Amino acid sequence: MNRRKILGSLAAVTMSGVATKFGGSPTAAAAQSESKGNSAADTSASRTGPRNLITDVGGLQVGQSHDAKVQTGVTVIVPDKAAVAACDIRGGGPATRETDALAPENLVQEVDAIVFSGGSVYGMAAADGVASWMGARNRGFSFQQVAGVPPSPIIPTACLYDLANGGDKSWGELPPYRELGVEALEAASGDIQLGTAGAGYGAMSGGLKGGTGSASVVSSEGFNIGALVAVNSLGSAIAPGGKQFWAAPLELNREFGGLGTDGLAAGPEDYGRAMRPPPPRTNTTIACIATDVTLTRVEAQRVAIMAQDGLARALRPVHAPFDGDVVFVLSTAQREGPENSPRSVLTTRIGALAADVLARAIARAIFEATALPGSQVPAWRDI
Amino acid sequence: MNRRKILGSLAAVTMSGVATKFGGSPTAAAAQSESKGNSAADTSASRTGPRNLITDVGGLQVGQSHDAKVQTGVTVIVPDKAAVAACDIRGGGPATRETDALAPENLVQEVDAIVFSGGSVYGMAAADGVASWMGARNRGFSFQQVAGVPPSPIIPTACLYDLANGGDKSWGELPPYRELGVEALEAASGDIQLGTAGAGYGAMSGGLKGGTGSASVVSSEGFNIGALVAVNSLGSAIAPGGKQFWAAPLELNREFGGLGTDGLAAGPEDYGRAMRPPPPRTNTTIACIATDVTLTRVEAQRVAIMAQDGLARALRPVHAPFDGDVVFVLSTAQREGPENSPRSVLTTRIGALAADVLARAIARAIFEATALPGSQVPAWRDI
Repeated sequence: MNRRKILGSLAAVTMSGVATKFGGSPTAAAAQSESKGNSAADTSASRTGPRNLITDVGGLQVGQSHDAKVQTGVTVIVPDKAAVAACDIRGGGPATRETDALAPENLVQEVDAIVFSGGSVYGMAAADGVASWMGARNRGFSFQQVAGVPPSPIIPTACLYDLANGGDKSWGELPPYRELGVEALEAASGDIQLGTAGAGYGAMSGGLKGGTGSASVVSSEGFNIGALVAVNSLGSAIAPGGKQFWAAPLELNREFGGLGTDGLAAGPEDYGRAMRPPPPRTNTTIACIATDVTLTRVEAQRVAIMAQDGLARALRPVHAPFDGDVVFVLSTAQREGPENSPRSVLTTRIGALAADVLARAIARAIFEATALPGSQVPAWRDI
Repeated sequence: MNRRKILGSLAAVTMSGVATKFGGSPTAAAAQSESKGNSAADTSASRTGPRNLITDVGGLQVGQSHDAKVQTGVTVIVPDKAAVAACDIRGGGPATRETDALAPENLVQEVDAIVFSGGSVYGMAAADGVASWMGARNRGFSFQQVAGVPPSPIIPTACLYDLANGGDKSWGELPPYRELGVEALEAASGDIQLGTAGAGYGAMSGGLKGGTGSASVVSSEGFNIGALVAVNSLGSAIAPGGKQFWAAPLELNREFGGLGTDGLAAGPEDYGRAMRPPPPRTNTTIACIATDVTLTRVEAQRVAIMAQDGLARALRPVHAPFDGDVVFVLSTAQREGPENSPRSVLTTRIGALAADVLARAIARAIFEATALPGSQVPAWRDI
């Protein structure tokens, strides 16, 4: 490895960002960052993307749909063109589809969409709808194009369990997910409704209403990383005894209430509203990280691994046998990484940013959620 | 699943613990835990084991050794009898030995010792010393005992990179690790020196001196969980701009300084002393969780997965390509889990406790560390 190059790129990590914030020299900025007291929330206003959504990452859109009677929904992430993707599964109860295809030794390296769905195993039909829609428009993987043979859209999918949330699940042999998938896809845009929306519509999280969250961050050189998440976790996003989010140390611009970190604490086995009766069912936090930086399939895997740490920073406990936690990573490949950075350093930087932006997205999901009509489970805003 | 049983056991999670702390009825205790403000650190004094070390878990001892000239060391965890173990690897640069043997589909389900070592790839020789010592005493796995044939001690091992810490590594073809392994094993007891000791003797962590940490916790029913860790992380255990530990929300009894959580924050790409030049080398946090509760090999795996979240809560960033992060789990099988608890709930509870106790152990490693003579890298206590 070229030590000079690594040294230069690592300096950029800690110094250019700070220099941008304070407008000072790198040296003064480094001294500033060393000083006691932290005003990250005040000084980092410029560090989220303009929407503070995953769609700040160029080259992708997000569509959502829901069924208010069933109390469930679907979220679809659609890259403008097939995109390199990875997947890391750490929950003990995942409900997934087309994740094996993503293994780096396998044929396909790129995906056409990523689907999050409510509905547990039934939700996987959302990808049927998306696949059919895309295939009919000749979008998808085909090693050779043959007339009359549709391509195979690659649509990795993860579902969360919202079957017991009080909605009407008497769908018999006709669950609504195929249609919800198409509806979400057709609604794709740069806007994303947070909270009780999309795949997080019927979600619950640690005794509170769960939901859909998103956030973004811009690196010191201007590359973009965003997170989208549907939070249906066994564990809690807030510390016991109050309303403060576990992700509070990472909050930017009061994006989830600005309650700060004073008093953020939990004793052994004190999980607040989480881990209480009723008994656990399958829970799941499904997330997707996107970046406009070109990543290889294997680099994206390391980013997915590091991004799971965002779940650990935002939810307690997490990755339990009752969670089906899945993190996808998508590279829209709109820009190359810094020329003078070894790839391993770039991957480290993107993975570290991904973990933090995902933690923030999780807190925003709970912060933005509203209670379902008639539900016993309160939203964060109601407590 | 029997819902009544799950319900009962989950109630025990949140209520018995709190009831013990406050001496009140479960209902009053639950209300108390709901109130604003959190005094976990004050009210949980009884929740660590007597030593606040992994050796509070019955049925194991820990031995350590170091070489002050080489600035390296070894830690050996020795169960009284072969113990079920698991291993979860999440770092991008692991240096391990005998971890494949632990796969649940493989022959061996139990281990005779776990070794942590400095010395990067050379450190794996520490396990040679431990294996030879044990084999000569007829301890180890043998499917059939045959006269004159030694058993095969199973000694999963993970090493950290401390080659560039300024110590004298001019060992040529005779690295010191085999002898350090034997020395550590022969020193095994219930006491553990923390900080600059054992495998963490030569470790660095995010721009500060790393070290060896340990902590323990007692569940509401009295089962014990402990963590031992050698912290040599790329990322930092403290938030930028001060001395506060990322693990502060989980601190018990001012075990790492009682600095609290007010102001615990970090802006994007602000990693404080971590992620700065000099260029990254291979880093690693090696941990072992132990519990006296009987776990199957597969349950121990889930506990290892959940325990990795302790690294995420205590270090930022973590699980990078430059980290070789490994978590072992050891069950000394001295007691059964609660009879009325489904195993999945028990695993969840132990995994959740494991994550938190490991986060605390990491902070204690840095808190207790002292700088190496002549080193440019300060200890936490020196900043």
